[in-house]
Amino acid sequence: MIIQLEKDITDIQRATLEAKLQSVSYQTTEVATQFSEYIIGVGKKEFDIRAIGTMPGIRDIHRVSDAYKLVSKKWKVEDTQIDLGDGIKIGGGSFAMMAGPCSIESEEQIESTIAHLVKNNVRIMRGGVYKPRSSPYSFRGLGIDGLKLWYKKASEAGIKIITEVMMTEQIDDMIEYIDVFQVGARNSQNFNLLDALGKVDKPVMLKRGISGTIDELLQSAEYIFSNGNEKIMLCERGIRTYENSYRNCMDLNAIAMLKEKSHLPVIADPSHGIGVRRFVERIALASVMAGADGVIFEVHECPEKAFSDGQQTLSYEEAETLFDRLRKTFEFRENL
Amino acid sequence: MIIQLEKDITDIQRATLEAKLQSVSYQTTEVATQFSEYIIGVGKKEFDIRAIGTMPGIRDIHRVSDAYKLVSKKWKVEDTQIDLGDGIKIGGGSFAMMAGPCSIESEEQIESTIAHLVKNNVRIMRGGVYKPRSSPYSFRGLGIDGLKLWYKKASEAGIKIITEVMMTEQIDDMIEYIDVFQVGARNSQNFNLLDALGKVDKPVMLKRGISGTIDELLQSAEYIFSNGNEKIMLCERGIRTYENSYRNCMDLNAIAMLKEKSHLPVIADPSHGIGVRRFVERIALASVMAGADGVIFEVHECPEKAFSDGQQTLSYEEAETLFDRLRKTFEFRENL
Amino acid sequence: MIIQLEKDITDIQRATLEAKLQSVSYQTTEVATQFSEYIIGVGKKEFDIRAIGTMPGIRDIHRVSDAYKLVSKKWKVEDTQIDLGDGIKIGGGSFAMMAGPCSIESEEQIESTIAHLVKNNVRIMRGGVYKPRSSPYSFRGLGIDGLKLWYKKASEAGIKIITEVMMTEQIDDMIEYIDVFQVGARNSQNFNLLDALGKVDKPVMLKRGISGTIDELLQSAEYIFSNGNEKIMLCERGIRTYENSYRNCMDLNAIAMLKEKSHLPVIADPSHGIGVRRFVERIALASVMAGADGVIFEVHECPEKAFSDGQQTLSYEEAETLFDRLRKTFEFRENL
Amino acid sequence: MIIQLEKDITDIQRATLEAKLQSVSYQTTEVATQFSEYIIGVGKKEFDIRAIGTMPGIRDIHRVSDAYKLVSKKWKVEDTQIDLGDGIKIGGGSFAMMAGPCSIESEEQIESTIAHLVKNNVRIMRGGVYKPRSSPYSFRGLGIDGLKLWYKKASEAGIKIITEVMMTEQIDDMIEYIDVFQVGARNSQNFNLLDALGKVDKPVMLKRGISGTIDELLQSAEYIFSNGNEKIMLCERGIRTYENSYRNCMDLNAIAMLKEKSHLPVIADPSHGIGVRRFVERIALASVMAGADGVIFEVHECPEKAFSDGQQTLSYEEAETLFDRLRKTFEFRENL
Repeated sequence: MIIQLEKDITDIQRATLEAKLQSVSYQTTEVATQFSEYIIGVGKKEFDIRAIGTMPGIRDIHRVSDAYKLVSKKWKVEDTQIDLGDGIKIGGGSFAMMAGPCSIESEEQIESTIAHLVKNNVRIMRGGVYKPRSSPYSFRGLGIDGLKLWYKKASEAGIKIITEVMMTEQIDDMIEYIDVFQVGARNSQNFNLLDALGKVDKPVMLKRGISGTIDELLQSAEYIFSNGNEKIMLCERGIRTYENSYRNCMDLNAIAMLKEKSHLPVIADPSHGIGVRRFVERIALASVMAGADGVIFEVHECPEKAFSDGQQTLSYEEAETLFDRLRKTFEFRENL
Repeated sequence: MIIQLEKDITDIQRATLEAKLQSVSYQTTEVATQFSEYIIGVGKKEFDIRAIGTMPGIRDIHRVSDAYKLVSKKWKVEDTQIDLGDGIKIGGGSFAMMAGPCSIESEEQIESTIAHLVKNNVRIMRGGVYKPRSSPYSFRGLGIDGLKLWYKKASEAGIKIITEVMMTEQIDDMIEYIDVFQVGARNSQNFNLLDALGKVDKPVMLKRGISGTIDELLQSAEYIFSNGNEKIMLCERGIRTYENSYRNCMDLNAIAMLKEKSHLPVIADPSHGIGVRRFVERIALASVMAGADGVIFEVHECPEKAFSDGQQTLSYEEAETLFDRLRKTFEFRENL
Repeated sequence: MIIQLEKDITDIQRATLEAKLQSVSYQTTEVATQFSEYIIGVGKKEFDIRAIGTMPGIRDIHRVSDAYKLVSKKWKVEDTQIDLGDGIKIGGGSFAMMAGPCSIESEEQIESTIAHLVKNNVRIMRGGVYKPRSSPYSFRGLGIDGLKLWYKKASEAGIKIITEVMMTEQIDDMIEYIDVFQVGARNSQNFNLLDALGKVDKPVMLKRGISGTIDELLQSAEYIFSNGNEKIMLCERGIRTYENSYRNCMDLNAIAMLKEKSHLPVIADPSHGIGVRRFVERIALASVMAGADGVIFEVHECPEKAFSDGQQTLSYEEAETLFDRLRKTFEFRENL
Repeated sequence: MIIQLEKDITDIQRATLEAKLQSVSYQTTEVATQFSEYIIGVGKKEFDIRAIGTMPGIRDIHRVSDAYKLVSKKWKVEDTQIDLGDGIKIGGGSFAMMAGPCSIESEEQIESTIAHLVKNNVRIMRGGVYKPRSSPYSFRGLGIDGLKLWYKKASEAGIKIITEVMMTEQIDDMIEYIDVFQVGARNSQNFNLLDALGKVDKPVMLKRGISGTIDELLQSAEYIFSNGNEKIMLCERGIRTYENSYRNCMDLNAIAMLKEKSHLPVIADPSHGIGVRRFVERIALASVMAGADGVIFEVHECPEKAFSDGQQTLSYEEAETLFDRLRKTFEFRENL
């Protein structure tokens, strides 16, 4: 059960309400976000919601049978829109395109990518400065100095940036230099990291785990929300299956279902979702038709020379075509 | 290596050619289809193709490094189009829509479905008369009598029919009363059935196995082709993964990749690919953007009363919307 | 619900019983096996079993809530033992070892393998004469002539043979020359083949599908049983997962669970279950501890020269050690 | 390439060695553990190892073609044994049994479990004080206070404890009160946590990811080792597959293969590996035959009342039988 509180609820009203819930053996959790305050009650079903629905200080109240609560569409019917400022919005009818290299490599690369995005009127740049790598002997990214340089160049050009945060200790260092935190697939159930990202006021894009279920993804989002941060996007990036002719199996079923289960924006990552450059476009466009609110993909001036192997990275020319087709496909979908 | 023979190749030329191949330790297989004759040579790589390329009686010759040969796009670059007659074509630029019930149930149901298709100008009807069922105590379909009735009604209305064949013994009985044989997911590697379907001159739609790889699907198609039947469609119908919030995981990566690997038409089956009625449309439209040449789905006058549970079956009204949107999406894709 | 009938039940008693069941909307299926007659009733739960339990002609009656009925341990508590004759038994306390090559290749190979088995007092030989192959251009086995030769040599040496049947048309040809029919993983849901094998009086070893569930395996066994053949073994041979450092993932959980769910013997196939020669022994011994009633594995005089690649095939020396350790491990388990 | 350095290598010798490696474009990483110092060189293969093998200051040098290096058996042939003190050893011929509740719940529960272990002469107790939970509204463990109490009671009884650490910030708080750190499946690729655990001198048991590959597990272990900690155990705890009749699919193939690929001890977790109480014993014993160096499982005075649902938790009586059978099975295996 979710109870949204009035802004002017008194301490006594709040205490009465919690006592009432606890008297029927409900466990309560207080949630205070950027936008509102809630009490989450978890307990037996037989409770009659009307017994508290008329108590003072309550703005809204609903039963939510899902294991996740605040991120469920059973709680909030209208789609969430995330506002990055400067007119850049994600979800709720605004289609988001995010592109950039796998890793931030150099000042020259940053400038070149920004110029490419500006030319194509794309406003969000992706890139890694902390890279999760299977092997400890691999390059792990330029770190905080790379981030500062990148952020400076991007904000001068009116570009927002999204980058992966891998541990709670990085949050404070990074927060001034990012627009969206990304949680990678390997950290999709790093609950301490999710807790910590719930305590800051920056948007978070949460990737589905390598073999995460749809419900686990939503419960991970619930961690962030219930710690105080409502600005969450979900990202489908392909799952691990037995098939090995591609890197991951892009799960478009999940995109369609997430749009029904949750009010949060859903972003498709076709680069990781198939992992083969020449198929990225088809999967990107298919994702739009499946309901995605945005697409994030890898682009590099010279894919062959990109850190990592660049197998899933588009060239500027390919990206230019894709930006154009994504816009057309989104428009086509909205008018269908 | 594939060698396509001239129609007028002499017996001596043919024998010389095979002897030549065998002299370099190539194993040869003769293939004669509705359209042409081929010799497939499998052996060591070091053979110089020019040594036989100029021999008389050869129309074309190519190395094909894939395990599958004749169905590979490395052999035949242009897309295959299958002609069902009466102006109904599949692949090669013609978008195919096939719809109908899970099971053929009654004369009334047949007539109602045909009327629905005719109204929507859809020319191919699906339906099962032999049903593979997990439990031996379940209904297994109306069998050959149901098929005869259905075929009569359908052909009177100018509708082609596609239905599943489960065993070689059924082929002779069915062949006069079908337009397309369907091989189900469970029979995707029933090699004897594939052999037998290679020996008849009727189109075959081959479904990917429940956990079949893309390469296994193409090799199964190669069984049909190398037995003499070039009229093959491939069908993606979802694969088995760990996720259980839907029935199968529709693999749109596979659609994109099959279109590159093979010249055969690729059909999407969103009904089985997600298994949840209200998401069938999104997955159907996404499949078109991923490159599908057609879509097959389940429709029933009253989905709740359909044999099986009907959980993935659209109503007439929903199907009508989907037919319309499929046509628009295909047109949009072709003009992108 | 399963009703086992008395041998001397009269036609009138039988008709009365079926009428009674149908009067409460139960669908009935008559089953007559080598050993007994049954009526399977499927319907609503609310039916009171006592209403028919006292009717004449009934030997036993039970509710079985599983989707599979006759193969369930809820129906038959004691383990089934399959008697191959000549003192060779499988299950019910008798541990079975079956070994031999992937493919029957030659008279010399047959004789060598038989000598090896006789030396080690192993009484069941495996081998393929019809081989399911992914590619149509691969060797598909020696066929019926190879089988006849093999059977002759084996029966002279007191060895029973098990070999794969791939299609119903082969059954009649093979039946005189085999001791156990094997249904391969790819045919695990070839329901017509299962039906046909239910109509002969020869033991059948049914392999789990490449990605078959435990329940699907038991339902496939139910097909054979309900068509009249109670002599069934189940075989775990590894499943398809995302991990590709081995060929299949041997599912020992399934062995433990099958022994609880069903009264049928369970055979482990470590050769296919891991697919790497040097690990076959460990997985074979682990399978015994998980509860297997027997083990089937591949052995060849010269594994490197075996048809297929022989990667999972033991040498005679390795097999000799394994036979010995299997016997000791089975004895250890039984005395634990 | 791994170069193990002599303890008395001089700075000049070290610099000369690194310069030599870098001169042939090898990237070098210095590793200093509790036991030794190494230089890991990653680069092109064509380098002749003899060119540096005779340089002073080098104790040992080997090429290791695996992606993981120091944890590979290609580097270190003999099995690693981890000494917990007080005569308690893991691996290298010593079989380890670890048992205890899912969560540490109360002083009473701690005392009861310790008494149970002492009675059975089991020296290592498991239990969670920080619990990773899918839902943010679930109990997350007693935390550091629970740990302190538990450690006090256990060390008084001569029992070592193993418990999960979820984030780097917890390490300092926990380190005085634990004997073995456990990294859970969800953190198997939390590389920052692995880095941090490499910097302390306490044994670490690393669980395989929910859908982690064998190679990923070994690379994660390499993170710990290359940061300075050689005391690592690997744990197989079941993987995610399509089968849902049990919780996870215990991968005994992985146990057999890990024992060949690495010198690190391998522990089996049958509780999570099948997740069904009545099958835990069979899977535990099978794991021993597959090669495990130890077993960890859940036990509770009253499984039905355990935190979590206790579905996979043994009673004291069941555990007593299992301890006995595990000892016998290990002895049987060693003498086979």
